Amino acid sequence: MLNNDTHDTLTIAGKAYTSRLLVGTGKYKDFAQTKAAIDASGANIVTVAIRRTNIGQDANAPSLLDYLPPSEYTLLPNTAGCYTADDAIRTLRLARELLDDHRLVKLEVLGDPHTLFPNMAETIAAAKVLVQEGFDVMVYCSDDPIAAKQLEEIGCVAVMPLASLIGSGMGILNPWNLQLILEKAKVPVIVDAGVGTASDAAIAMELGCAGVLMNTAIAAAQDPILMAHAMKLGVEAGRAAYLAGRMPKKLYSATPSSPTAGLITPSK
Amino acid sequence: MLNNDTHDTLTIAGKAYTSRLLVGTGKYKDFAQTKAAIDASGANIVTVAIRRTNIGQDANAPSLLDYLPPSEYTLLPNTAGCYTADDAIRTLRLARELLDDHRLVKLEVLGDPHTLFPNMAETIAAAKVLVQEGFDVMVYCSDDPIAAKQLEEIGCVAVMPLASLIGSGMGILNPWNLQLILEKAKVPVIVDAGVGTASDAAIAMELGCAGVLMNTAIAAAQDPILMAHAMKLGVEAGRAAYLAGRMPKKLYSATPSSPTAGLITPSK
Amino acid sequence: MLNNDTHDTLTIAGKAYTSRLLVGTGKYKDFAQTKAAIDASGANIVTVAIRRTNIGQDANAPSLLDYLPPSEYTLLPNTAGCYTADDAIRTLRLARELLDDHRLVKLEVLGDPHTLFPNMAETIAAAKVLVQEGFDVMVYCSDDPIAAKQLEEIGCVAVMPLASLIGSGMGILNPWNLQLILEKAKVPVIVDAGVGTASDAAIAMELGCAGVLMNTAIAAAQDPILMAHAMKLGVEAGRAAYLAGRMPKKLYSATPSSPTAGLITPSK
Amino acid sequence: MLNNDTHDTLTIAGKAYTSRLLVGTGKYKDFAQTKAAIDASGANIVTVAIRRTNIGQDANAPSLLDYLPPSEYTLLPNTAGCYTADDAIRTLRLARELLDDHRLVKLEVLGDPHTLFPNMAETIAAAKVLVQEGFDVMVYCSDDPIAAKQLEEIGCVAVMPLASLIGSGMGILNPWNLQLILEKAKVPVIVDAGVGTASDAAIAMELGCAGVLMNTAIAAAQDPILMAHAMKLGVEAGRAAYLAGRMPKKLYSATPSSPTAGLITPSK
Repeated sequence: MLNNDTHDTLTIAGKAYTSRLLVGTGKYKDFAQTKAAIDASGANIVTVAIRRTNIGQDANAPSLLDYLPPSEYTLLPNTAGCYTADDAIRTLRLARELLDDHRLVKLEVLGDPHTLFPNMAETIAAAKVLVQEGFDVMVYCSDDPIAAKQLEEIGCVAVMPLASLIGSGMGILNPWNLQLILEKAKVPVIVDAGVGTASDAAIAMELGCAGVLMNTAIAAAQDPILMAHAMKLGVEAGRAAYLAGRMPKKLYSATPSSPTAGLITPSK
Repeated sequence: MLNNDTHDTLTIAGKAYTSRLLVGTGKYKDFAQTKAAIDASGANIVTVAIRRTNIGQDANAPSLLDYLPPSEYTLLPNTAGCYTADDAIRTLRLARELLDDHRLVKLEVLGDPHTLFPNMAETIAAAKVLVQEGFDVMVYCSDDPIAAKQLEEIGCVAVMPLASLIGSGMGILNPWNLQLILEKAKVPVIVDAGVGTASDAAIAMELGCAGVLMNTAIAAAQDPILMAHAMKLGVEAGRAAYLAGRMPKKLYSATPSSPTAGLITPSK
Repeated sequence: MLNNDTHDTLTIAGKAYTSRLLVGTGKYKDFAQTKAAIDASGANIVTVAIRRTNIGQDANAPSLLDYLPPSEYTLLPNTAGCYTADDAIRTLRLARELLDDHRLVKLEVLGDPHTLFPNMAETIAAAKVLVQEGFDVMVYCSDDPIAAKQLEEIGCVAVMPLASLIGSGMGILNPWNLQLILEKAKVPVIVDAGVGTASDAAIAMELGCAGVLMNTAIAAAQDPILMAHAMKLGVEAGRAAYLAGRMPKKLYSATPSSPTAGLITPSK
Repeated sequence: MLNNDTHDTLTIAGKAYTSRLLVGTGKYKDFAQTKAAIDASGANIVTVAIRRTNIGQDANAPSLLDYLPPSEYTLLPNTAGCYTADDAIRTLRLARELLDDHRLVKLEVLGDPHTLFPNMAETIAAAKVLVQEGFDVMVYCSDDPIAAKQLEEIGCVAVMPLASLIGSGMGILNPWNLQLILEKAKVPVIVDAGVGTASDAAIAMELGCAGVLMNTAIAAAQDPILMAHAMKLGVEAGRAAYLAGRMPKKLYSATPSSPTAGLITPSK
């Protein structure tokens, strides 16, 4: 069974994780609810918006780290709210300082505050600098297969295309582009943004993605803790279905050509 | 957590089941594989094509009941391969005899061997007779909301609309019709036929269905046992997401109107 | 060119029509707008709800026939608003009287006033009687391929499956079921109900339907006359594309295997 | 009526065109068929792959210009087959020479020969140079709304996002991204690539696109001339529907709350 199979792990930048669900920490009622939802999700990697969440920048306010200690979770600082390469680079340098030379980061450079669609030119520019500075860069990106390949060639350790706009819950709008990315990628492809419910997460995994990152879909559900559990199951279901090899789709079933063959008769 | 919640059970004809996944027994390599897949699926209710599977009609051949004893599984005799009300009725009377006055049955009357689409007129005619004869009739049907309501009014204990053609694996082709059925139904609505992979099962549950019945999607996967496990997770994921109440879909996220609000500054 | 091709006509009950767009007469501002929209649509066949529209039942009120004289349009009395076979039969007998032994009719028997989904059992019952009484019955139905075939076998002259609910404008929700109907039908298959915009009409025709019937999509557009024109073009576009034989869909283009082959060089 | 309305023209770089359908010239049997299809399409603007089609580079071979004289058609030289900004720029400078200081061009810089997806970084780089050199640049691009806006700000006269991969015929895979582009664009947005049949063209126009460019969908149809006509109608249908303002979609019709209201009774 899958959950006993210690070999099906997600490896990013040389480290193996048992969960393929990555989660954010925003939009919860308080840090206690954040922690409860994350624990229900089973996530190992937890992303934190450095410009929005206190992980020590403000020494007088409660810190997320009190609830999610780096000894138990892999924190993934991200650059939510950054609209230029410079801003994003500065933000991640700060995170490295705050988190004792932590190297694994999530880069996102947004195009505008209305759509939160990535600015791919600035994203690529920032990725080049960050990789050179020794960061392990996981990168939020559009579903452009050429740009995704460029980010991999720059040295990013994971590419994270959107399924649909951040916070939209619209699901996977263009599975074909994801498929183009997956066919070429040698690093993990992790769907980031747009997942709205458990079946969306399952679909992403069935396409062959290595993982799914989400925040709003859990935090904005009516019952975030239960939804976190649903997402855990959805990711596991999709991964298992991918590994199991689904039946082919066909317009009609493989009807037996002689439909009366194989009928049995009571023994006399 | 959901799996500790003993109250979320599926009740059919007065009996509660912990699993919302119902499975078939056809198309497996042998009865041993059938049993292994069913156990991985966690299903309580197991449907058997009386005209194709030996449950005692032939006393000299191996019987499915040796592998799936009625003491451990709820057997659900079905009328696969029947094209008229009369055939279906006769088949279920035989099943009742073979299974010691067993009353829970699945009625299906097919329209033609090419599509395996139900013949709704014959289905309704058979349902009337079977209900009068004391059967607890779960009924395979099209996604016609008016016909589904008629079947409920006749006294069927569950209506089981197709998601797409039997054995096609095409998934849920018309979720809107399922929704019309769900809005009116007072008996459990269980998607029967067409599910191809775990996300399809999750989607059915997220729509509010009470359960999902499948056979080919598991039996025809490359690894049936692992797919059975995936389907278990998919159904549980979809059910949990349904109960958790998903976030609304929106074209854009609820972007903060002033996107710089809420940014934090390092404490001095 | 198609519009010069006098052979591509729609033949119903032995009569040929040049337009494959059939239109309703309800929901317009007044009879003058009704006529203007119908003329812009180019429709030959115009359906009239006998229970809602005055074609002579009330001798003191304006009659639709003053605007749409039977000498210029083929009137198609319909049974909108009928919920039983008896009601529908009575309504069409009245229509035959009012329209001088007119035989071409559209049967619709609705399941409930909320969805306006057809009641197929009552529809089949009514069709049998009407065909026996000598009517040429065009019949509104669900997209159930078995029931559609039954209606044809009863003697209906056209089957008219819904694309989606009447008045919903949701377009073609289940093209696969339409395709099942089209593969078996020997009488014209005309999509009736659910078309919302011109591309919906084009899609129906590209699937191989013989025609499209609509009312709300034109009458409830902001500019009904212009939308009527759009629908005319949409039906013609879809029909021409169907006859022209579309390119196959492929995930990738037929990229030349050696992409530099065929490049030309300036002559020296 | 729309076709009498001389005001609904497509204006690109200050010049008005009556047709919103732009067509390519590749993949036809010969130049005679090319011309016949283009004439059936009604297109004013005809795009030519400078690296594949002879428009004078080879003085000894037949020239497309003998069939499509610039006096009757607006030729649109394109850079199909170019994979770098430099190649594309060189190609268009050559075109300008061959076509007597012609300025209107279509830039495309491809990412790889397998997908023909655009390389957006190279596309943006080339666009900057070409605009500075005085070209009127129509630009093939991904459906990335941020990049589309950047291309407009650089000075491109039209942005031309793909609907799906060149030559795929898959239709509009992500209408939401097109919508994001349309909401922000001040220059014409013309869908380029991926259209497979007439309804695809209609959908693009209904979304609000200013035009559609296609080649394979016409040239690879079984009857290219008839398909060219279908595409002309499809574009006109979609444009008219867009201008007419479609009815809203609703799950149910606006059923009269008292469904028996408005029924008429025969006058006594």
